[in-house]
Order: sequence, then structure tokens, then C-alpha cells
Amino acid sequence: MIIGIIGLGLIGGSLGLDFKKQGHHVLGISRRESTIQRAISMNVVSQASTNMSLLSTAEVVFICTPLGFIIPTLEQLIAYLPSSCVITDVGSVKTPIVNAISPVWKNFVGGHPMAGSNDSGIEAARTNLFTDKPYVLTPVSTTTASAIAVVENLIGQLGVNIHYCSPEEHDKAVSLISHLPVMVSACLIGTCEKELDAQVHQLAQKFASSGFRDTSRVGGGNPELGVMMAKYNREALLMSLQKYRSNLDELVNLIEREDWISLEQILHSTQQARGKFVKE
Amino acid sequence: MIIGIIGLGLIGGSLGLDFKKQGHHVLGISRRESTIQRAISMNVVSQASTNMSLLSTAEVVFICTPLGFIIPTLEQLIAYLPSSCVITDVGSVKTPIVNAISPVWKNFVGGHPMAGSNDSGIEAARTNLFTDKPYVLTPVSTTTASAIAVVENLIGQLGVNIHYCSPEEHDKAVSLISHLPVMVSACLIGTCEKELDAQVHQLAQKFASSGFRDTSRVGGGNPELGVMMAKYNREALLMSLQKYRSNLDELVNLIEREDWISLEQILHSTQQARGKFVKE
Repeated sequence: MIIGIIGLGLIGGSLGLDFKKQGHHVLGISRRESTIQRAISMNVVSQASTNMSLLSTAEVVFICTPLGFIIPTLEQLIAYLPSSCVITDVGSVKTPIVNAISPVWKNFVGGHPMAGSNDSGIEAARTNLFTDKPYVLTPVSTTTASAIAVVENLIGQLGVNIHYCSPEEHDKAVSLISHLPVMVSACLIGTCEKELDAQVHQLAQKFASSGFRDTSRVGGGNPELGVMMAKYNREALLMSLQKYRSNLDELVNLIEREDWISLEQILHSTQQARGKFVKE
Repeated sequence: MIIGIIGLGLIGGSLGLDFKKQGHHVLGISRRESTIQRAISMNVVSQASTNMSLLSTAEVVFICTPLGFIIPTLEQLIAYLPSSCVITDVGSVKTPIVNAISPVWKNFVGGHPMAGSNDSGIEAARTNLFTDKPYVLTPVSTTTASAIAVVENLIGQLGVNIHYCSPEEHDKAVSLISHLPVMVSACLIGTCEKELDAQVHQLAQKFASSGFRDTSRVGGGNPELGVMMAKYNREALLMSLQKYRSNLDELVNLIEREDWISLEQILHSTQQARGKFVKE
């Protein structure tokens, strides 16, 4: 198949490596000439260009730009494509993207490969990044069955676990397990850093160990990514934050009332519940 | 030196292993006969008993019981000891312990070795658990200089980094970097688990990955330990939780107002600040 990939970072680059290995012809687009050269030398693409016209022969295009560029990229892109071309994206928020693109391109299927790494950029691209990871597709009522089949077949070749849901369900789920942790974790760092007693602040820095390290990891991550989550998934994130705050209030209230039995019940239930979300 | 250790779990057992290796005579006390047998066979102690009278010849005693048993253990213990004996503890909260014990035993030095493991019990004991880790001592105005010197000298042999501060400063610092993360993390799990939309709840379980795993780790830990933190460090923890909540409110407010510039500034500052607390 002739596959176009726009945005040759960690995700786009890793898709290119896998698709090339499967024998597909991969056309890559990047805004930067240096990325194009690197993509060719790393064997991520068959051909690459800074000019989207390269994609005019593509049968399917993966938009792998940062979240904020997906819709503008699509708007530019469609001038070069026949309407039969299938378009999909890899954005980590789906509702605004699917709502904007579906009305203008019926062969569009929203997607979200849930594989990541602390590294980014084409240098971080690797084969089998997606193997055994969830890959969510969010088709809507107007999405053509043939477009779904094309994307499903291609990503199936990557060994992913495909999940289907509505864009809204996707966004609510990721607001809970991905975007809420970032905000919760950032607030933890902020609280420690803003400690006014200089001696306590210094001791906190010296004493912080694995518990603080793990709980603060995602809150110390890429600020631009955090803003994108909040901006594009604002409604679901605010709902999650409100629920979180009421849970926090309940916990504070138990500690104020010294209701240790109820606190222990809550901590027992969170200990049990965690195993349903992560295996360790 | 003749060293007594009461409570042969992870911390007490690991102290025993290191002190024996240094050539000290280690006397161990446990409530359970099976632990005594295990301690002898693991070479954690020179002699062990369920009866505290074994410690009558000890020059220094480490109380390594769970937090809630430190004060009652001390009350029992002192009947067997000459007043010259130095006593120290390893409790993770210091103010209530130091306030209770210092008036009755002038050779008492509050201590907190900040080394842990996900495992507990004597089976988890190992040599060099404390090497290069912070070990906090919290002497007060009535603590004898000789008692401080004895403890300082012994723990110095373990290769720890000794820090001195007041019990209150210790408790405020650990409330920020150790106890607050537990509550923040438990609330995250609770919020995800209480999601009422069954489909979203199920998707959240399927999609949860490394971000959720790390942020939820300490909130899914030992419930009894979580309650002990809250019970013994209640005042400092409540203060930390109140500051945390006001940080959270500020963040929610920015997202509600769509003030992305301020949100990005906050996330930049948390990214920067994290490096002062943990090295990664």
C-alpha cells in the first residue's frame, strides 16, 4: 500500500519503520529538511519531502503532528488528495478533531495509538513501539466502513490491541487515566516547591525519594503537552478534576474528623482498585 | 557495642545485618517466636528473644516497631534498662514520639532512616539498605550530647547521610514529600474507580499505562501505613493538603478561564522544580 505520514517524530517515525518493514511504500512529510534527511537515512520512509504534494498518490495518510496542528494540517492536505484516500490521525484527544474533520472527509477515522516514551523526535523512533499496546479507533456514524477496514487492517499488522469507542468516551477515559494524573502530579510538585519555610523546603528536597519521584513524574513532563491536553480535552478534564477535588475533600474531612476506620477503608479500596488498572 | 533491636522487620532486620557485620553484638526482640528463629538463621542477630529482659545489657536500643507501637514499647522497655542506655527509634513521624519519650528518657534520640522497599518483614531484610540514604536525627534541647554521639557514630558506620533537624521540621518535610503523595495518589485511584459511566470506566482500565501506574503507585500501597501517617502526622499533613487544594483550585481556575499562557508557566515551573527534589 502507499502510505503517507505527516509529522516524523516518535509516533510518525515508528509507524514508518514498521510499515516499511511490512513492505509498504511510505511517503513522509516533515516541515524540516533535516528531519527528512534523517528519516531517509534511518529507513523510516521510502521517499520524503517538505511539500505535501508528494502525498498525491497515497492511499492512506497518517497525520502524526502535535495535537494543535492536526486540523490545520488536514485543511492544507486535502487539496492534494483524491476523496477516496483514507485519512487517520494519532492525536491523544479525539472529540474536537473528529468533530472538525468528519464533516469534510468521510474517509477519516480518528485514531490514538497508546504507546509512548519519555523521548521524542525522529531519533526516538523504533520498530515494534506499538506491539501489544492499545490502539483506539473512534469512527462515527458518517465514517465509511471501507475507511475503517483500511486503517484496521494496517494497524493490525503492527500487532496492536484495537479498541473502538466514541470520541467522547475516549476523551473521558484518557482524561481520567492520562490527563488528570498530569495535573494532580504537577500540583504536588507546586505544593512542595512553594513551601515558605526555607528549612522545611530544603529538607523536603533532601528527603524526597521513590514515592515523590513516581508521583511527580508526569507533572514534571513536557509543559506544552500538558497545555494541549487541557486545551483540547478541557471539558472532560474539568469534570475529572471536579470529581477528584470532591474525593480529596472527603479524605481531608476524614483526617480532620480523625475517622481512621473510614480512612483505612478508603485506602483498602484504592489498593484493591489499582490492580484493575495496572498490572505490576 | 551491645546493640538491642526491637522489631525485626525490614528496617530492624537490615540494621541487625549491618551491625553484626561491623562486629557488634546484636540482641533482637520480636513478638513472634517464628521471627526470632528466622532472625537467628538469617544471621540478623547474635541472640534473640520474645522477652525484653534480654536487653538489660544493651548499651543502645533501636525501636523498630510499627509507628503505633513505638511509645507503648518504650514504656515497657525502660523497666529493663539502666538510665545510661541510649534509645533511638526509626519511626517515620517524629513530633509525637519525641514529645512523649524525651521527658522520660534523656538519652533518647529520635531517628528516621529514609530507606524503604516495597517489601516488608524480616524476609526483606538486607545488608547496605541504608547506604547513601538520608538518616534524620531529631535531638531536642534536653537530649544528651553523649546519646547523640553514640547514635551518630553507629549509623555513620552504615554509610548513611546524616541530617539534623527539629521533630517539627522533619514532620513538615515528610508530610510534603512522603505523606501528601500517598493521599494525592489514593484520590487519583478513587476518582478513576468511581467513574459512573461503565463504558468509560472499562476503557480507563484498558488504557491506563505508565503515567497512571507511576502516579498511582503510593496510593495503592499499604493502607495501615497510610492511616499511621495521617494519624501521627495529622497536623502537618492537613496543612500540606490545604496548600495542595489551593494549588489545585488555581489550576482548575486557569483551565476554566482557558488561560493557557499561565497554565504553561505553571507547568514549566513544576518541570523545573522537580529536578531540585529528584535526580533522574
